[in-house]
Amino acid sequence: MKPAVVLLSGGLDSATTLAIARSEGYACYALSFAYGQRHQAELAAADAVGAALQVVEHRVMPIDLSAFGGSALTDTAIPVPELPTQGIPVTYVPARNTVFLALALAWAEVIDARDIFIGVNAVDYSGYPDCRPAFIAAFEALANLATKVGVEAAEDAAAPIRVHAPLIDLGKADIVRRGLALGVDYAVTISCYQPDNSGAACGRCDSCRLRRQGFEDAGVADPTRYI
Amino acid sequence: MKPAVVLLSGGLDSATTLAIARSEGYACYALSFAYGQRHQAELAAADAVGAALQVVEHRVMPIDLSAFGGSALTDTAIPVPELPTQGIPVTYVPARNTVFLALALAWAEVIDARDIFIGVNAVDYSGYPDCRPAFIAAFEALANLATKVGVEAAEDAAAPIRVHAPLIDLGKADIVRRGLALGVDYAVTISCYQPDNSGAACGRCDSCRLRRQGFEDAGVADPTRYI
Repeated sequence: MKPAVVLLSGGLDSATTLAIARSEGYACYALSFAYGQRHQAELAAADAVGAALQVVEHRVMPIDLSAFGGSALTDTAIPVPELPTQGIPVTYVPARNTVFLALALAWAEVIDARDIFIGVNAVDYSGYPDCRPAFIAAFEALANLATKVGVEAAEDAAAPIRVHAPLIDLGKADIVRRGLALGVDYAVTISCYQPDNSGAACGRCDSCRLRRQGFEDAGVADPTRYI
Repeated sequence: MKPAVVLLSGGLDSATTLAIARSEGYACYALSFAYGQRHQAELAAADAVGAALQVVEHRVMPIDLSAFGGSALTDTAIPVPELPTQGIPVTYVPARNTVFLALALAWAEVIDARDIFIGVNAVDYSGYPDCRPAFIAAFEALANLATKVGVEAAEDAAAPIRVHAPLIDLGKADIVRRGLALGVDYAVTISCYQPDNSGAACGRCDSCRLRRQGFEDAGVADPTRYI
């Protein structure tokens, strides 16, 4: 089995992405971040998801993006919006996916993995710039210039490092269907931006709204535990 | 004065880069990393350099790349080579500059800086892939896709975020001459991969050899304190 690094947040999308990577035959190394997010419940969820989907290893790396702030997710002084907003919302964390993919790349190079999976989605999403196909393609190009494996394979036609974003063109309902078909237990995942200490979801933030609509559109029961 | 984030390691190249950024009129926010490197002396050097060159702020961010290892600089079980080696040396830290630039980008976005400076050099260097012009250009392209400011300026002709690598085409002697002309005190910088606890340089590693040769070729006294 080929190794792959899979970014795992504990939410619905990354759990589905991990299930897809596993179904494609990769030995999955899951990577989560304690990045100063508002709640630690999602890290416990990531651990449960990783165990259920039999990852080879699950690492939680501390990287304190709250030292920079600038987002409702990393600065508790900025409230999480509970109504739709115009433009890129304040829940956008500056350069978060760039930082996460960079660290995934570092680990991938050390364990000699050529494949990185990320659960970004550009259909039912919050409009974050670092969830779009052009961003993923640009990161993949960068990865092949940044690394030893990329340089040493420079004479080959194909760039060796691939960044997989298998959900990028799927609507939320399709993601839910895909995950259920692969046996994902969404009851253990947490998507909410502001769950309570027990991990129960608010039901009102952008992430809760997108998730709830996904289950509804897929015509399946929503297993989310709401406050 | 426009703000800029300047990556500052405490070595000769980043000190020169900071001096150049300052001479170009930027208000400099210096960023260093406690990334699990072999020695902390370089962080003390970075602090001294930042103070001497009057940065607005100097941050040291912990990001433990030694959790991944895979380099002589982040894994003490891998010795630092003291003779020239073939290919990319074991002192290469997987994806290090990708990680550092990603975090510089995060800070830049929060403080509304459009300019990032990095002291990479592709002439008298160790052959690291993430020091080459193509890597810097790819990161700049990524940065403009990854961020709010990049997206919001998408209709402009010019991409708003710039990654400056003012040393990239300079030989080490030219870097030394440039820095001296700008008043850099190289006595406080540390380039060595394995200094002793007092910060004295080994004189034998690749980084020491390149630095020593730079002073010699520039025809100036080498202020480095050797073991």
